[in-house]
Amino acid sequence: MSENALIVGAGSGLSASLARLFAKQGMRVALAARQIDKLGALCEDVDGKAYQCDSSKRDDVEQLFQNLDSDFGELDTVVYNPSARVRGPFIELDPDEVQNAIQITAYGAFLVAQAALKRLSQRGKGNLLFTGASAGVKGYPQSASFAMGKFALRGLAQSLAREFHPQGIHIAHFVIDGGIRSDRRADPPDRPDSLLDPDAIAETYLHIIRQPRSAWTWEIELRPWVENF
Amino acid sequence: MSENALIVGAGSGLSASLARLFAKQGMRVALAARQIDKLGALCEDVDGKAYQCDSSKRDDVEQLFQNLDSDFGELDTVVYNPSARVRGPFIELDPDEVQNAIQITAYGAFLVAQAALKRLSQRGKGNLLFTGASAGVKGYPQSASFAMGKFALRGLAQSLAREFHPQGIHIAHFVIDGGIRSDRRADPPDRPDSLLDPDAIAETYLHIIRQPRSAWTWEIELRPWVENF
Amino acid sequence: MSENALIVGAGSGLSASLARLFAKQGMRVALAARQIDKLGALCEDVDGKAYQCDSSKRDDVEQLFQNLDSDFGELDTVVYNPSARVRGPFIELDPDEVQNAIQITAYGAFLVAQAALKRLSQRGKGNLLFTGASAGVKGYPQSASFAMGKFALRGLAQSLAREFHPQGIHIAHFVIDGGIRSDRRADPPDRPDSLLDPDAIAETYLHIIRQPRSAWTWEIELRPWVENF
Amino acid sequence: MSENALIVGAGSGLSASLARLFAKQGMRVALAARQIDKLGALCEDVDGKAYQCDSSKRDDVEQLFQNLDSDFGELDTVVYNPSARVRGPFIELDPDEVQNAIQITAYGAFLVAQAALKRLSQRGKGNLLFTGASAGVKGYPQSASFAMGKFALRGLAQSLAREFHPQGIHIAHFVIDGGIRSDRRADPPDRPDSLLDPDAIAETYLHIIRQPRSAWTWEIELRPWVENF
Repeated sequence: MSENALIVGAGSGLSASLARLFAKQGMRVALAARQIDKLGALCEDVDGKAYQCDSSKRDDVEQLFQNLDSDFGELDTVVYNPSARVRGPFIELDPDEVQNAIQITAYGAFLVAQAALKRLSQRGKGNLLFTGASAGVKGYPQSASFAMGKFALRGLAQSLAREFHPQGIHIAHFVIDGGIRSDRRADPPDRPDSLLDPDAIAETYLHIIRQPRSAWTWEIELRPWVENF
Repeated sequence: MSENALIVGAGSGLSASLARLFAKQGMRVALAARQIDKLGALCEDVDGKAYQCDSSKRDDVEQLFQNLDSDFGELDTVVYNPSARVRGPFIELDPDEVQNAIQITAYGAFLVAQAALKRLSQRGKGNLLFTGASAGVKGYPQSASFAMGKFALRGLAQSLAREFHPQGIHIAHFVIDGGIRSDRRADPPDRPDSLLDPDAIAETYLHIIRQPRSAWTWEIELRPWVENF
Repeated sequence: MSENALIVGAGSGLSASLARLFAKQGMRVALAARQIDKLGALCEDVDGKAYQCDSSKRDDVEQLFQNLDSDFGELDTVVYNPSARVRGPFIELDPDEVQNAIQITAYGAFLVAQAALKRLSQRGKGNLLFTGASAGVKGYPQSASFAMGKFALRGLAQSLAREFHPQGIHIAHFVIDGGIRSDRRADPPDRPDSLLDPDAIAETYLHIIRQPRSAWTWEIELRPWVENF
Repeated sequence: MSENALIVGAGSGLSASLARLFAKQGMRVALAARQIDKLGALCEDVDGKAYQCDSSKRDDVEQLFQNLDSDFGELDTVVYNPSARVRGPFIELDPDEVQNAIQITAYGAFLVAQAALKRLSQRGKGNLLFTGASAGVKGYPQSASFAMGKFALRGLAQSLAREFHPQGIHIAHFVIDGGIRSDRRADPPDRPDSLLDPDAIAETYLHIIRQPRSAWTWEIELRPWVENF
C-alpha cells in the first residue's frame, strides 16, 4: 500500500516541490488550498487531487479530513505551509488584518494539526511538518503580526513534539531563513544561490520524514550560504 | 506632574502587587479588567480607578484608552497581564476555546500595545511591559494553547522592543516561571518560598521601568530558588 | 556585621562602578586584578583593599580566597569580570593566544566560582555574578575565541544556577550587549546614551543581588536603547 | 577523483558508523584518535588509514594535517567528535581535570577547525562538522565541565558558520540529545529505540553534507522518540 501525504497551503514554490518529490517517492499526494483553480497542472504532474479548504476555518478543515478519510483511507504525512502577515509601522497596522494573519499562520496550523493527530495517533505513526520562518525565532521590527503568527506556530510544534513523539508520531518545525526562488524571484546574477531552492528544501523535509525514530529532529533551519543570520 | 500607569488584567495577585507598588511610588493607577466588581478594595487602596474592558475586543480597548486620554491625559507605563489556556490532551481540545485563549493571551496584547504605543510614541518615552511565562519559551506537552499564546506574546514583545527602543520607549517581557503565591495557594511548609511572591515580582517590574535608557533589558525571567528549569 | 563583596577583574569601568555602589550600600569591598598598581584611587574611594591575582591561575585563586578568609571572614557576593579575546580572520589566529583567552574568560571563572562556592555553600546563601556578553549567546564571525570563552562562561553559569539555586546561593549571568562608556570612549554627540553607562549596569547587578529567593533571575541582558540586536 | 573525509575522535560508536557510511559513498576515510591500536578492524572495513593524534595538542594536529596533505592531497569533509567531562558535585571537581576536559571538547575543536579551514578556504568548498550535545544548549547541574566544553564548541561552530558559509564552506553543529546505542549499551526491552542508533545519526550527518548551498543547515538536534527534552 502506498503512503499518503497531505500538503496544506499548496500553490507554487515549496509546496509544489514537496508534491513532486513526494510523488517521486511513490506517495499519493493531496493538495489543499484556499484557491485551487491554479493547481490543475501540479495535480496532473503528481497524479494528485486538489481540495478547496480555508485552513483557518474549523468547518473547512473538518470537511477536508473527512474527504481524505474517504479518498485516502489513511494518512502518513501532513505538511502545513500557510502564512500571512501585515507589513508596516506597528501603530499603522489594521487590527483585523493582524487577527486574520494570526488565524492563517497559527490557528489554521492548530486546526490541521488536531485533525491530523486524531488520525495519526490511532495508528501510532506518521509525520506532521510545519513550515516556519526565521520570524518564528526572532521578532523583527515592523513585523509584529508575522512574529506573533510564526512564534505561535513554533510553540505549537514544540508542544506537539513533546506530546506526540512518545506516541510514535514525528513532529518537525522548519525554520526557513531567506527568500525562496520562484518564477517571480530569481537570484541576483552576482549572488548565485542566494535564494533558497524549493527543491533543496523539499529534500530536507523528506530526510526528516525518513529519519528512524531512534534519531529524530524536531527543528531544523535552512538558509542560503550567503544569508546573514 | 505625576506618572500614570495602566494595568490591564487586574485582579488579585501580581496585578494588585503592581498597583500597590506603583501607587507607593506616587504613580496614578488605572486598573482594567473584564470584571471590575471585585476591584473596589484595591482601587481604594491605591486611590485608583477601575475600567471595564475585555482586552481581546477591539472596541473595548479603543474605549479604554479614550477614557484614559480624558482621565489621565498622558500615559507613562502600561502592563499587560491577561492570559488564558485550555488544558488536556491535544486531540481533545475544543478549537473555539483554543482560539479564545490565543485571543486573550496574544491578540489582546496586540490591541493594548497598539493603543498604548500610539500614545507613547508621540511622547518618545514610556514603558510597555508584558507578563509572559515559561510556556512562552518552552512548549510543554498537553499545553499547546498556552504555548501558542505565550510564544506569540513573546514574539510581539521582541518585535516591539526592536521597533520602539530606538524611539525611546522601553518594552519588556517577563518570563514568570513558577506558581504565584496567593490567598488560594500557599507554599508547602517544607518548601518555603517555592512560590513566587507577587510583591517580589513587582519590585523587578519597577526596576525595569526605572532603568535608564543606556542600559535597558527587554527580557528577564523570574523563578523561585527551588524551581526546576 | 557588614556584607563582604569580592570583585574579580577590577580596574576602571564596570568594576569601579560596582565597587562604588557596593560601598555605598555599606558593603566591604575587595578588588582582585592581575595588576593592582592602578587601583589605589579606587581602593581609597571605596575604603577597600586590592589583591593581586591572575584568575586563570589555580594557585593565585587559591591564595586570593585564603587571604579573604583572613581579611573578611565571610563572603556574601562575588563578581567575575575578566575576559580576553583575539580578533581577526579565524585562520590567522594564534592558537596560544586563543587558549589564553579561553583561560581568562572561562577557566578563570571556573576557578573563582569553585573557590567562592566552597565558601558560600557552607553558609547556604550568597551571590555569584558573571559578566557575560552578547558574544555568549551569539557567535559572531571573526570572533571565535570570544564566542568560545563567553559561551563557556554562560554554560558554567547556567549549570551552577541549576546546582546552587536550590542550595540558597543566587547565581546570575549578565549579557552585556554594547560598548561601555569610559574615560576613553564617549557617546557620539548625535547618539546620546548609545554606550552603556557602567553606573546603570551596576544598579541592575545590585537589584539582582537584592532579589528575594522566591523570585530569582539567573540571566538578564542589558543594552543601550539604540543598539541593534 | 574521490572525496576525502577525516574523522577526528574515531573509535567505536558514531565515528565508526560515519566511517562506514562515508566509505559506502565512495569517500576515502582517515581516522584520527589518541589511541589507534584498536582501529585496525575499522580501517580494514572502510579501507581507511588511522592517524595517532591528541587533538588537544597543537603539534599533534599540525602533524596530522601535514600527513593528510601528503596522503590525501585535498580534504572535503572533517568531523570533530572528541569530548571529555568530569562528573560530580561542582565543589569537588579537580580543576586540572576540568581544564583538560575543556581542552579536549573545545580547544581541540578549535585546533582541528583552524587546520581544516586553512585548507578548505583555499578551495572555497568543503564541510566541517562538530558533534555537540544537549549539554551545549542547556547547562545541567553537576555538569559544569561538560557545559563549558560543549557550550564553547557550539559558540565556535556558530561563529565559524557566520564566517565561512559565505566562503562556500559548510559548517554544522549536531546536538546529540540522548545516549548512543553500542556494544556496551542496549535499549531496555520495554523501551525500543530509546537509544540513538549511530547509523541513523550518521545518515543525518551525510544529509547535511549533501545539502546544496542554497539551503544549508548550521545546527540540528537528534534524539530518540521517547527522550524527554
